[in-house]
Amino acid sequence: MADGLTISIDAMGGDHAPEAVLDGIDHVARKEPGVRFLTHGPEERIRPLLETRPAARAACEIRHADKHIAMDVKPAQAMRQGKGSSMWNALASVEAGEAQVCVSAGNTGALMAIAMIRLRKMEGVHRPALIASWPTANGFAAVLDVGANVQADASQLVEFAIMGEAYQRAVRGQARPKVGLLNVGSEDQKGHEEIRFAGRLIREAGVDLDFYGFIEGDDISKGTVDVVVTDGFTGNIALKTAEGTARLLAGFIKEALTGSVLSRAGALLAYPALKKLRDRMDPRTVNGAVFVGLNGLVVKSHGGTDGLGFASAIDVAIRMAGSHFREEVSANLARLAVAEVATPAAAGGLA
Amino acid sequence: MADGLTISIDAMGGDHAPEAVLDGIDHVARKEPGVRFLTHGPEERIRPLLETRPAARAACEIRHADKHIAMDVKPAQAMRQGKGSSMWNALASVEAGEAQVCVSAGNTGALMAIAMIRLRKMEGVHRPALIASWPTANGFAAVLDVGANVQADASQLVEFAIMGEAYQRAVRGQARPKVGLLNVGSEDQKGHEEIRFAGRLIREAGVDLDFYGFIEGDDISKGTVDVVVTDGFTGNIALKTAEGTARLLAGFIKEALTGSVLSRAGALLAYPALKKLRDRMDPRTVNGAVFVGLNGLVVKSHGGTDGLGFASAIDVAIRMAGSHFREEVSANLARLAVAEVATPAAAGGLA
Repeated sequence: MADGLTISIDAMGGDHAPEAVLDGIDHVARKEPGVRFLTHGPEERIRPLLETRPAARAACEIRHADKHIAMDVKPAQAMRQGKGSSMWNALASVEAGEAQVCVSAGNTGALMAIAMIRLRKMEGVHRPALIASWPTANGFAAVLDVGANVQADASQLVEFAIMGEAYQRAVRGQARPKVGLLNVGSEDQKGHEEIRFAGRLIREAGVDLDFYGFIEGDDISKGTVDVVVTDGFTGNIALKTAEGTARLLAGFIKEALTGSVLSRAGALLAYPALKKLRDRMDPRTVNGAVFVGLNGLVVKSHGGTDGLGFASAIDVAIRMAGSHFREEVSANLARLAVAEVATPAAAGGLA
Repeated sequence: MADGLTISIDAMGGDHAPEAVLDGIDHVARKEPGVRFLTHGPEERIRPLLETRPAARAACEIRHADKHIAMDVKPAQAMRQGKGSSMWNALASVEAGEAQVCVSAGNTGALMAIAMIRLRKMEGVHRPALIASWPTANGFAAVLDVGANVQADASQLVEFAIMGEAYQRAVRGQARPKVGLLNVGSEDQKGHEEIRFAGRLIREAGVDLDFYGFIEGDDISKGTVDVVVTDGFTGNIALKTAEGTARLLAGFIKEALTGSVLSRAGALLAYPALKKLRDRMDPRTVNGAVFVGLNGLVVKSHGGTDGLGFASAIDVAIRMAGSHFREEVSANLARLAVAEVATPAAAGGLA
């Protein structure tokens, strides 16, 4: 399915670049020999590393870039000084139409800021958003925004709903994902005004969505809905709180299973099951947050990931690029615009 | 330490009332025979249940109340129609000075609303808050607000910091708890304006707090700080998201350890360790959210808890009532008021 696809890669982004990045490419190139990679970074560092990664070597075209953006640089500084860096050039390849999607494990703030300059917002989108994949009891939910913006008003939350729903269809192949708004209770009068207004807007905007209504924090992992809509402040805190909780519990389990001779023996017997459990909880398999709402696709890998994790981010990029994600977002946004024009008084009265 | 203490109990609050409530009292009365309980509820239901709970019977004085407030009643309705109910009367006993603290497993919104009317806000507190105890890698952190208010401005966040810090000293016996503000990054410029302003206010307000600065969601479970300050919307979602994540992982572990004959045998060998783990993760041991900022102490138990969980909530009440919690909050709020008067221009310029 991915034949003919070209992916633009920031080879110097992330804590273990460029090695982890090239490992990730190699991993994917072995499964998907039809995909091409434009690999942005210093040629003298990348070329020797490709020698030991033959699948990546066959699929990569090196695009030389001297500079790279450090992980701790502020977004404003990255915008001013980032020109010619591996990240900048990786995004420019998407802008120029040479590649269909860009993947970077670099500085998140810098990536979002430069992507906004190079690719610009899609027509009808006021705030691009960052989508995370969240493991649930019955698969994966898309949660957005997880940190592109710190605040969101009601109409931006509606845009997030539209983009998240299209994402879930594109990346997870769900025919009709269920969409929920994250709140502190499920009743209509719960939460603050923007949330309640967003709930009414989604219901009344004429957008073709399976809207479930409000959900609470524990509904995310339950899998009550497939798309969780929230502002970037709340979404970022929810995501990191869940990661922290999972890490704490994993530590407790490890402690319990290595604490005595008997429990170590028990853990040995249960090893295959525990290994499967560990794989299931492996954060690398859900790596790849997607920056949506731009005239181009951008996937952000965790900065600390290894080759396997980077390969997961490339997988997300392949699924996004092979889908009608942007067309479907555009179609739904157009419907939203029509609905807003049709009911200006109602919207104004509530805002 | 608890001799001479009187606790007012809403015997009819919670899904398993009054049985679970009386079980909880019985459990505590066996360890703490010096504590008295004013038990509000229908005498004809409570008296026979005390026959089989001799420790509770010895410690309880029944205060007859015909009515009780249903779990699904809206706060406004509870305020209008709640007079004479077991919850209302339990709070009134604290108001009248007959009891030092009230415990209820009833309707949270109703409890907060009636407590506000009966006990009123402490001088200097603009918004009472709900504190949850959160298990971390090195003990328990206090997280507030977890849902009493949906929004909080900077000066309210400062009040939460003061109350949370005093709570941690009172309930956990920590000499100098570390306080953090929940945000989407640790740098000074992260987050929205209210959070950044709250950070400056805490630093500059002349309040004697060990202020760590901003923390992120994953810091809560890590135990980076002892007191996590946030608005009620974010706190409620973080708490429920963590509960949901813990429940999902517990399900995954159970599935892994019962999935095959080998893993079941392994789980059997590791049984003592796994049982200890289960106890450690038992939500009943951290039951008892505290509603702070009123002229009286109110502890809210989970509605669905059993006797052991209700006993945990009573334990929290005993620790709060035996401490100088309210005096310390008052002293710090007074210092805050002095600092605010001294720097009105600076505060006004930022607000």
